[in-house]
Amino acid sequence: MITVHGNPHSTCTRKVLTTLEEKGAKYDLRVVDLATKQQKSSEHLARQPFGVVPVLDHDGFELYESRAIVRYLDRALPGVSLTPSDVRDYARMEQFISIEQSYFSGPTIQLLYQARGGQPDAKIVDENRAKLAHTADVLERRLGEAKYVGGASFSLGDISFMPYFALLERLGHGDIASSRKNVSRWWTDVSARESWKKVSG
Amino acid sequence: MITVHGNPHSTCTRKVLTTLEEKGAKYDLRVVDLATKQQKSSEHLARQPFGVVPVLDHDGFELYESRAIVRYLDRALPGVSLTPSDVRDYARMEQFISIEQSYFSGPTIQLLYQARGGQPDAKIVDENRAKLAHTADVLERRLGEAKYVGGASFSLGDISFMPYFALLERLGHGDIASSRKNVSRWWTDVSARESWKKVSG
Repeated sequence: MITVHGNPHSTCTRKVLTTLEEKGAKYDLRVVDLATKQQKSSEHLARQPFGVVPVLDHDGFELYESRAIVRYLDRALPGVSLTPSDVRDYARMEQFISIEQSYFSGPTIQLLYQARGGQPDAKIVDENRAKLAHTADVLERRLGEAKYVGGASFSLGDISFMPYFALLERLGHGDIASSRKNVSRWWTDVSARESWKKVSG
Repeated sequence: MITVHGNPHSTCTRKVLTTLEEKGAKYDLRVVDLATKQQKSSEHLARQPFGVVPVLDHDGFELYESRAIVRYLDRALPGVSLTPSDVRDYARMEQFISIEQSYFSGPTIQLLYQARGGQPDAKIVDENRAKLAHTADVLERRLGEAKYVGGASFSLGDISFMPYFALLERLGHGDIASSRKNVSRWWTDVSARESWKKVSG
């Protein structure tokens, strides 16, 4: 039995749910209400000491950190593999998962904060857009040499970036994908997947 | 042939070199001089577009992001495996690699900046020490149930944290390890490994 303690709008929860959908797994989503800060409740903190979502419960085995959860699910569950078997493609996938964590999610979340707090600070918006543009250029080069981040097949590397591109689009920064030929082609492709439509719909 | 473009004092370079030593691999370290900002030179930026170290060159295959490099090396090279074969231990290892990247390296580097810039700002020091203490408590619980981060055997999860604990010690924050029973026992153990002594010596 698989339970995800998370929120359908959270980027990190979406990575986990997309992975579960791709694996064809059944799961139960227990919503943690971020509006009432339920992620900081003692009940949730007992599962996740950093007070964020999601947490996976797989037959009593509890795990947090979305990037660890998706790697675990891909290894533990049956279904199509979301990890390239070729060692260099595997390395590229890992490189881009790390790039997402180091350079892409942070600036995206900064833009979300700016959009929420009344009048956005133009300087902060510009700085974070510049960081995202630089990383998107790196992604553009990779997607010019391979169909997906990890090579010829869809992988955890693609899933890592998807919730952030969706959020950027919602915040009015969709040009970060659409102004780049390969990223744009990739985003049109991956966002049409059944897994993603189910998770983000 | 393995070349690492990095710096012997850089935490991320040290993760890669420790992994190479553990695997018993021969390699050539090409020093990138951080004092003269060689990491921002056009030659280095062509290899690493974010202008940091290290970059691996394995028979012409170039890869950056230390956390991707160590996973790649463990898979690509012969020698002892640094990844648990049990899927739940593997999951814990990945959880802690992600915890390091999300919650431990950042505050450690903030303390390094404070130590460098003349009079440290006590408020910034306190804030970052509190963050590190919280993460060290999480590590303390894990190391109370297992000898190493990933279970019974030494893994990439341990290597991920080692350069930061060494740096904290050098900056006068060694109590973050020494004040916690299990973390202290673990740090005494892992810092005595031949690989680490060679890399940090």
